[in-house]
Amino acid sequence: MGKVAEAIDQALERILPPAEGKEARLMEAMRYATLAGGKRLRPFLVLASATLFEVPTERSTRVACALECIHTYSLVHDDLPCMDDDDLRRGMPTTHKKYDEATAVLAGDALLTYAFEIVSDPRTHHDPLVRAELVHAMAREAGAHGMVGGQMIDLLAESEELDIGAVTRLQQMKTGALIRFAVEAGAIMGRATKDQRQALQNYAHDLGLAFQIVDDLLDVEGTEEEVGKKVGKDGDAGKATFVSLLGVERARTQAQMLADQAGLHLEMFDEKAELLRLLPHFVINRRH
Amino acid sequence: MGKVAEAIDQALERILPPAEGKEARLMEAMRYATLAGGKRLRPFLVLASATLFEVPTERSTRVACALECIHTYSLVHDDLPCMDDDDLRRGMPTTHKKYDEATAVLAGDALLTYAFEIVSDPRTHHDPLVRAELVHAMAREAGAHGMVGGQMIDLLAESEELDIGAVTRLQQMKTGALIRFAVEAGAIMGRATKDQRQALQNYAHDLGLAFQIVDDLLDVEGTEEEVGKKVGKDGDAGKATFVSLLGVERARTQAQMLADQAGLHLEMFDEKAELLRLLPHFVINRRH
Repeated sequence: MGKVAEAIDQALERILPPAEGKEARLMEAMRYATLAGGKRLRPFLVLASATLFEVPTERSTRVACALECIHTYSLVHDDLPCMDDDDLRRGMPTTHKKYDEATAVLAGDALLTYAFEIVSDPRTHHDPLVRAELVHAMAREAGAHGMVGGQMIDLLAESEELDIGAVTRLQQMKTGALIRFAVEAGAIMGRATKDQRQALQNYAHDLGLAFQIVDDLLDVEGTEEEVGKKVGKDGDAGKATFVSLLGVERARTQAQMLADQAGLHLEMFDEKAELLRLLPHFVINRRH
Repeated sequence: MGKVAEAIDQALERILPPAEGKEARLMEAMRYATLAGGKRLRPFLVLASATLFEVPTERSTRVACALECIHTYSLVHDDLPCMDDDDLRRGMPTTHKKYDEATAVLAGDALLTYAFEIVSDPRTHHDPLVRAELVHAMAREAGAHGMVGGQMIDLLAESEELDIGAVTRLQQMKTGALIRFAVEAGAIMGRATKDQRQALQNYAHDLGLAFQIVDDLLDVEGTEEEVGKKVGKDGDAGKATFVSLLGVERARTQAQMLADQAGLHLEMFDEKAELLRLLPHFVINRRH
């Protein structure tokens, strides 16, 4: 996973526009936010799912970079004072702290837009149908019925009581949607069968929830140094999370169960699915 | 133009996601911002340029709606307190005033994303190459090297002295880019020849500048009631505009000249270009 993260860092470094012209500050902020490291979980999933279908790495890497641009934009906007108001991200000042709010808004907008420019570029895939399908799936998962919709519900959650069903739906949108797109991207590029697509969707479903439960656990149990951002926020805001609803022990058991179950969906794939099979265990044992 | 605006209003009403679910507030804000009226200049340009190539209106209308979503998102983000801090838009409270800042950020994000979902949808065009090309052109013109880049330069312009060349480049990015995409969209859907594309680009160039010069004139000469938003802002902010650099009289002459010139680029087209030929004169004589 470290190797993939390194390869993605380098690919992002190359693919992001250089800081030039009077608008250089915008590109600087885009690069600052995106190149600050991170686990690169979503790019890893794109590459690993593309591997199942022997899609060349040059192609899947471009889609992986596009998805990371979308993930990064969502963090930049999420950290804004009018949203979560966070000063730290991955142990570094958030984009609006490093630059200013207006630059952060625009850098987020530009990163989101750039993701679609990357994916629709003929260099990403020679078949325009694959490009159009990737764009369509990415927009659907990132938009009002996916990630952004989840963020809206999350904001409203501070003043509303959510039960476990509502929290699950919220997280399937807020975090799950991009994880779903990551494996879908491999399936689209690899022209997967309907059964293979469904298996990957089921895998993404369980992995996404396991990931989020661990996120909630880290918010309760981690330190700011370990996690690289402020912790204990959900509790302070009175937000319902998997941990507040299930308790620490049941939440941990649930994450373990989901991680085990995620791998089971991949039975139809051969040893090329090894990376995908290992990932859930990495995800639930992470410390940040 | 009024008829087209009405048709676009109705199409947007249908194409925007309904306000449903716990995230309904997000869709409400998306709809509020988009359905507040407006001249629908960019959709008009998409339809009029598509008409040159006899592209069916159902197709061009979907692209026109997508472009209007992008235009609307840019206004919503531009009006935010950390950007232009505007309370009024088209005579109504801006989105963050009507809802709140976080909802406005998310509604803008969702509108931008939705534009790509619309364009990449098979219902927009049966040929995936056309869909992929539309996405690519739209992302390029709306992104860091287009509209968002222009907004960044515009923000920095408050603390920098721009000459006429710099203001022209800024406006070609900030306002011109989406106008360029509007006519490009018609050309892509209509599989225009290289010469036809170039002619339309030249037209868009002159039209975009004429439009912006009139915008600057209205900011100096219009009243808040007429224009539907705060006026005199650029002067207060000490920003260089076409009017501050050229003076009112020369700016008006320049706009008139550009409007005349825009039409001349369309000589190769027959009477189907009539709408495009009339538009520049409407644009420079508008009062809002």
